Amino acid sequence: MSSATSAQTASAPSGSSAYDKLTVLLRENEILKSVANTLSWDQETMMPEQGAALRADQLTLLSGMNHDRNTDPRLGDLLGEAENDSAIADDPIAQANLREVRRDYDLATKLPKSLVEELTRCSSMGMRAWKDARAKNDFAKFLPWLEKTFELNRRKAECLGVPEGGELYDALMDTFEPGMTAKRTEEIFGPLREFTVPLVQKVMDAKAAGKAPSVDPAVRELPIDKQIEFTTRITEAMGFDYDAGRMDASTHPFCQGMGPGDCRITNRYRANGWCDALSSGTHEAGHGMYEQGLPKGERFGQPLAESVSLGIHESQSRMWENQVGRSQAFWKWALPVARGIFGDTALEGIGVESIFKASNLVEPNFIRVESDEVTYNLHIMLRFELERAMIKGNLACKDLPGVWNERIKNDLGLTVTEDRIGCLQDIHWSMGAVGYFATYTFGNLYSAQFWEAMGKDIPNREQQVESGDFSSILGWVREHIHQHGRRFSAGELCQRATGKPLSSEPLMRYLEAKVHAVYGV
Amino acid sequence: MSSATSAQTASAPSGSSAYDKLTVLLRENEILKSVANTLSWDQETMMPEQGAALRADQLTLLSGMNHDRNTDPRLGDLLGEAENDSAIADDPIAQANLREVRRDYDLATKLPKSLVEELTRCSSMGMRAWKDARAKNDFAKFLPWLEKTFELNRRKAECLGVPEGGELYDALMDTFEPGMTAKRTEEIFGPLREFTVPLVQKVMDAKAAGKAPSVDPAVRELPIDKQIEFTTRITEAMGFDYDAGRMDASTHPFCQGMGPGDCRITNRYRANGWCDALSSGTHEAGHGMYEQGLPKGERFGQPLAESVSLGIHESQSRMWENQVGRSQAFWKWALPVARGIFGDTALEGIGVESIFKASNLVEPNFIRVESDEVTYNLHIMLRFELERAMIKGNLACKDLPGVWNERIKNDLGLTVTEDRIGCLQDIHWSMGAVGYFATYTFGNLYSAQFWEAMGKDIPNREQQVESGDFSSILGWVREHIHQHGRRFSAGELCQRATGKPLSSEPLMRYLEAKVHAVYGV
Repeated sequence: MSSATSAQTASAPSGSSAYDKLTVLLRENEILKSVANTLSWDQETMMPEQGAALRADQLTLLSGMNHDRNTDPRLGDLLGEAENDSAIADDPIAQANLREVRRDYDLATKLPKSLVEELTRCSSMGMRAWKDARAKNDFAKFLPWLEKTFELNRRKAECLGVPEGGELYDALMDTFEPGMTAKRTEEIFGPLREFTVPLVQKVMDAKAAGKAPSVDPAVRELPIDKQIEFTTRITEAMGFDYDAGRMDASTHPFCQGMGPGDCRITNRYRANGWCDALSSGTHEAGHGMYEQGLPKGERFGQPLAESVSLGIHESQSRMWENQVGRSQAFWKWALPVARGIFGDTALEGIGVESIFKASNLVEPNFIRVESDEVTYNLHIMLRFELERAMIKGNLACKDLPGVWNERIKNDLGLTVTEDRIGCLQDIHWSMGAVGYFATYTFGNLYSAQFWEAMGKDIPNREQQVESGDFSSILGWVREHIHQHGRRFSAGELCQRATGKPLSSEPLMRYLEAKVHAVYGV
Repeated sequence: MSSATSAQTASAPSGSSAYDKLTVLLRENEILKSVANTLSWDQETMMPEQGAALRADQLTLLSGMNHDRNTDPRLGDLLGEAENDSAIADDPIAQANLREVRRDYDLATKLPKSLVEELTRCSSMGMRAWKDARAKNDFAKFLPWLEKTFELNRRKAECLGVPEGGELYDALMDTFEPGMTAKRTEEIFGPLREFTVPLVQKVMDAKAAGKAPSVDPAVRELPIDKQIEFTTRITEAMGFDYDAGRMDASTHPFCQGMGPGDCRITNRYRANGWCDALSSGTHEAGHGMYEQGLPKGERFGQPLAESVSLGIHESQSRMWENQVGRSQAFWKWALPVARGIFGDTALEGIGVESIFKASNLVEPNFIRVESDEVTYNLHIMLRFELERAMIKGNLACKDLPGVWNERIKNDLGLTVTEDRIGCLQDIHWSMGAVGYFATYTFGNLYSAQFWEAMGKDIPNREQQVESGDFSSILGWVREHIHQHGRRFSAGELCQRATGKPLSSEPLMRYLEAKVHAVYGV
């Protein structure tokens, strides 16, 4: 592949040490991964219907190549050599890179190929079965695949290895949120749960007393082309760089960071969903700004140019969506922007106060992805606890619907009558992702904790937001989070940025204030 | 790459003969090529500005991989084994495939890697120099790269080998139009040139006598979103399958066939260019319908699922653009369609006769890509003759502008005052493509010859077009051209479809009739 190599060297180190060779190799691997990412994005946004089979073949081929490259013994040899190279022993950047490359290589090589293939097959067939089961509201159709998924994930966890004093589930969680454990999660989630359940009750009482604000401003019917213009204007002002990215429509909004200079986000639009489009747009733009803020230039392919964990990634999206985009200060600036785009008539009768409240209503919902900031975490804790129990063997897959429905009744006061809006609603388990869900709430927790710490560094933050100036906010997360990539673990990053380990306190303070502002309780 | 292989086998032959293994390998190679094609399409349509460097790295990596696969000795071994397999000696499909795989493999392996790399480098730097030279209207800036390009192409031709009784140029031409030679081209182009020059003069005389129809209907200003709707409606009616393709905007219109179920075309739009958008849209859709008509299902990756030559490909685009899309019968159907989309008021004063004539005006133009059906071929013959002379050594690159300008004066009566609208206008030589230009006129010739033959098989073709029914036309090209892929050479295909070898007669008859209908001369 000489033509390929010759192109790499243009922007890669030209040295000949094992470490230099390793970075060249990693960069090439990352370029191939970015090819697959581009195809995945295209699949969800542009690909014609009949292109699906070819796309599956392309992605399968590339995934095989990527696996071969990630487990290439040459990579292992260079890594071992670099780890023993005294010339870079004092280089903190190189050492952090090597630590993370070692982690990735060990994770990739610990799993026997047969298990990887079984997991892939199970996820591919499991997703089909899940779609079918959900459409037909028939849990029994999915049950065999759910059982298989948890069995394979137990085997996966055994291969990856349980941390000292830990449990099988930790090994799975670690693949999404490195270093996090079930026990530590429990410690953080516990107080949050104790705080949330009565808070939801207070809101429900206020509602019953007729004290709930109107949702109308948030569901005003507005033209979709103007919604796109509005969301683009807002996310651009926040700092998403459209010269190095784009926003398109897709069924489910997502963010795909390709590599240097190319990060793509998607959004979805409904006639009466301008506030939904705004929140999913600012959410995905938050993910996008993290991707755009990672040092992908010369470090592309190295762990220090990658995001550190799903929880931290989610914190970046949630901050722009919630702490910024659902604040009163934000609406003071954004409502006039909206008037300029939609016209005064279209937004008649909507004021800063009413749109702020309408976009912050708390309302128990069967569906996780449609839930508000307060109740969302209850959905996550439920999933975390149930999947942990299923891995432990304390809960049989077949008993899932019953336990699920009981819990939803207790936490949210809702009676699940159909599994498709109960335990069949999420794609994650069908894809084989066990240990993932908690990262959503980690994102909420991190975002609140970062936001609080940032507030001390930027005392006039509220005035800045009111005037549509988001540069200090973006600058703060660039400095404290984005630029580091995987240099520090998520926990260390949090400690360095906020002076404290991750805690549920800041999120509870934030939600309490929000509920007070909206409901007066 | 076992995961890749396991996916392939789902839709590839499961046998274990060398031929079966070969087709599996070819299919995998083609899947990887289709990945690069998707990225190329994205680059021209979707990619954000700052993604260019990453995209270049991705395409370089893939091109190196593709080259390695095309020249893989394992491919050569399987090919040799299959060629000697008596079990398939009587299978015409297998034998045609093997003949063409042999051709490709020999072409790929005849060129030393060093020459391939030099050509790539020269084209990459040459394109930059050409863009700069064209912008500054400075031929001297491009001259060294032009000289290098022709020198490398001579070496390339020597490696590929000159056919018996032929010349170096033939070897280059053969890479674009297999089996075609300079001598044969000369024989076909000669009469066409003798016919065209006086025809252009007749038109110019008519114009001078005030007998030229008005261009106004073709340049009416119309909203671009409606132009897109109109072009989409027309191309869909012609038979381009939008469930297996899409049309987007790009600077230069093109067609990219990815593989089964995915073929993408692009178009460009200007406020006063609705007829330009129509003709480039029908042109690209013609390419697209050929791609969609190739037997890419189970034969994907085999030569028999590929287009046979650039000339035949161009014939498919030109037929829909010109023979169909610039006919009176077409406008009888399409003008009411246009009225339904643009509105009666927007098209006020435009009738079938006036729009037919306006979209068929003959007007000498400095620029090839802006030229009409009649003068276009003069541009091609000029380029064919000059590049042939430059390969032969009969024309020095430095003398190109003078010879070019003299010829344009003689053929078209135009005085070139700037090289950027003269010999610096085309990208082809800067890309290293020598021997390519003639295929544009082959396309015109083939399309006219196919059209004439088809007319005998479908006597009521005109009535069908008038009613917007294009199914017989598409059916005819599907049967006589598309389904065969590379089973027959372009020459054989022409002979089988029309009963005659390629000739300039049908095109001359077609152009004479068109000019008569438009100008009455």
